[in-house]
Amino acid sequence: MKKYSVWIVGCTWAVWVEMIKCIKTLNLPISELHLWASSRSAGKVVQTFMWEITIQEVNNDFFDNLDYALFAVWWENSKQYIPVAIDRWCRCIDNSSAFRYDDNIPLVVPQVNGSTIWDAELIANPNCTTAIAAVILNPIYKKYGIEKIIMSTYQATSWAWAAWMNELEENTKKYFAWEEPKVEAFVENIAFNVIPHIDAFQANWYTKEEMKVVWETHKIFWDDSIDISCTCVRIPTLRAHSESIVLETERDVDIEDIKNILSKAAWVELVDDIENNKYPMPLYASWNYNVQVWRIRKNLVFWNKWIELFISWDQLLRGAALNAVEILEHCINNEK
Amino acid sequence: MKKYSVWIVGCTWAVWVEMIKCIKTLNLPISELHLWASSRSAGKVVQTFMWEITIQEVNNDFFDNLDYALFAVWWENSKQYIPVAIDRWCRCIDNSSAFRYDDNIPLVVPQVNGSTIWDAELIANPNCTTAIAAVILNPIYKKYGIEKIIMSTYQATSWAWAAWMNELEENTKKYFAWEEPKVEAFVENIAFNVIPHIDAFQANWYTKEEMKVVWETHKIFWDDSIDISCTCVRIPTLRAHSESIVLETERDVDIEDIKNILSKAAWVELVDDIENNKYPMPLYASWNYNVQVWRIRKNLVFWNKWIELFISWDQLLRGAALNAVEILEHCINNEK
Repeated sequence: MKKYSVWIVGCTWAVWVEMIKCIKTLNLPISELHLWASSRSAGKVVQTFMWEITIQEVNNDFFDNLDYALFAVWWENSKQYIPVAIDRWCRCIDNSSAFRYDDNIPLVVPQVNGSTIWDAELIANPNCTTAIAAVILNPIYKKYGIEKIIMSTYQATSWAWAAWMNELEENTKKYFAWEEPKVEAFVENIAFNVIPHIDAFQANWYTKEEMKVVWETHKIFWDDSIDISCTCVRIPTLRAHSESIVLETERDVDIEDIKNILSKAAWVELVDDIENNKYPMPLYASWNYNVQVWRIRKNLVFWNKWIELFISWDQLLRGAALNAVEILEHCINNEK
Repeated sequence: MKKYSVWIVGCTWAVWVEMIKCIKTLNLPISELHLWASSRSAGKVVQTFMWEITIQEVNNDFFDNLDYALFAVWWENSKQYIPVAIDRWCRCIDNSSAFRYDDNIPLVVPQVNGSTIWDAELIANPNCTTAIAAVILNPIYKKYGIEKIIMSTYQATSWAWAAWMNELEENTKKYFAWEEPKVEAFVENIAFNVIPHIDAFQANWYTKEEMKVVWETHKIFWDDSIDISCTCVRIPTLRAHSESIVLETERDVDIEDIKNILSKAAWVELVDDIENNKYPMPLYASWNYNVQVWRIRKNLVFWNKWIELFISWDQLLRGAALNAVEILEHCINNEK
């Protein structure tokens, strides 16, 4: 069996650690694993489950002998290096938004639209808020169709950078010490606060984070007819995001059947033990590969074709890392 | 001008401090102010803006010489003492849910339905999640009508008890000290967590907190035809609640006009300075009498008759205390 040489690009981000965990969990046939960072981190030695790896500074020639590169960097860096990698026959999986909206680049959640990958040289990994909702929505979409989605998010501080979680922790400590918060990662102090603003405001007064949910859901499901509206909100939690989702199906829904199909879906965990106060919560979704879902019920406004549900998942492990590594797995399994 | 004798019942709750602030702010004609608590707190002396007050243990005879009693206690205590107070000609304003759903008891947000008070001996103060949304919804309801509401909440730990906020603070400190959290006020550790469960689950799988929004909005607006669906979520913030609200009006809405009518509403503050990253946030809504509102925009799913908005307010000061004291003010101003 062929073994592959893989490069994770961008190891100053919190995501690369999770990517390596996922590669191990999925037991991918990897013979070589390299880590790239900027010159600042180059030379550092990190311990992974496979080998001790010395972080290297990026160098265009490195791409020559690679099979796959996983990019977890700012979109500007993706724009710079991905064309070089592709020129040198290295297939790329990109976590940034650099290429997501390019019609020629597949935007993939493998369970939903893995088949769109074909022999693409570059595959884009969606925004986590969209990708994880898609994991839950897909079985419902397949059986009942989805016409409309209204979503409010509860997004943790774990974006790609560990620094963002650090800012929550540090400013929380400063709160107890009566010290002034240091606001750098977010637009305001996030400690014990809520910020209803993620990414830039658009002409329609939605934020880009909210519009990404619209654009990317349309592209992943290859269905522009789904009407979507979203409010994205940052809250003071660490790793795991949550979402409150109201949706209209095409056909009348049966709640018990929704529970049934979700309980059988890959990487989905129905957490519905209300007698013991168990439901999707960041506390238990963190460090967990599964997307937790529950609070599944008929919507009281529209009834028969509308349901509500609540989901929670580890943003770093499940959101940013696993989907990218599942794309890698899909590519490897379908190599000609 | 007549001056009134007022008793605040339940000063082990965090709310009484805020009630006294509100009485001062509204400059109500009060000649005497008493505080009651259980025997545990009786005898303690507290400093208020008016006088030093010695907390007294409840005694039925106290009601004889009182004009008004503000109850901020568990519903069981309201059930016990309010009938006694009324028998002795003391008018009561009750923060608990004990009498809210009794058809004969007005449930009041003064700006919306103050006129339903008449000469009622007992007036119920609504659940804050409903009361504060009503402050924002009322001007929209009056001008455009409201047919449907879909809401997701971001509720702080400040319920009536300071102990609830303390649990968030203490468990946050324990997180940093690597100590086991102590879970008493909430069903789970709330530090850096999200709990999509407030109050008991109902037969329809909504929680009682969620159904209160339905029941109480119908009663306050005297309009059962408003369809409402809600997801209530506890998050790790201290004083201020937030809500993401999607609503359908009866008539086509003009967003600029919505901003205009909200900017003129009492106790409402439009926080819309996005260039300086200012929008409704618990950080600034705390210790503030106003309900902050913004993120006002057309909903992308239904368009012309649907809008979305985001609100934030101090749950203790604005939510639990000010509405009750405004009911008191309304009663005093309308005494025959």
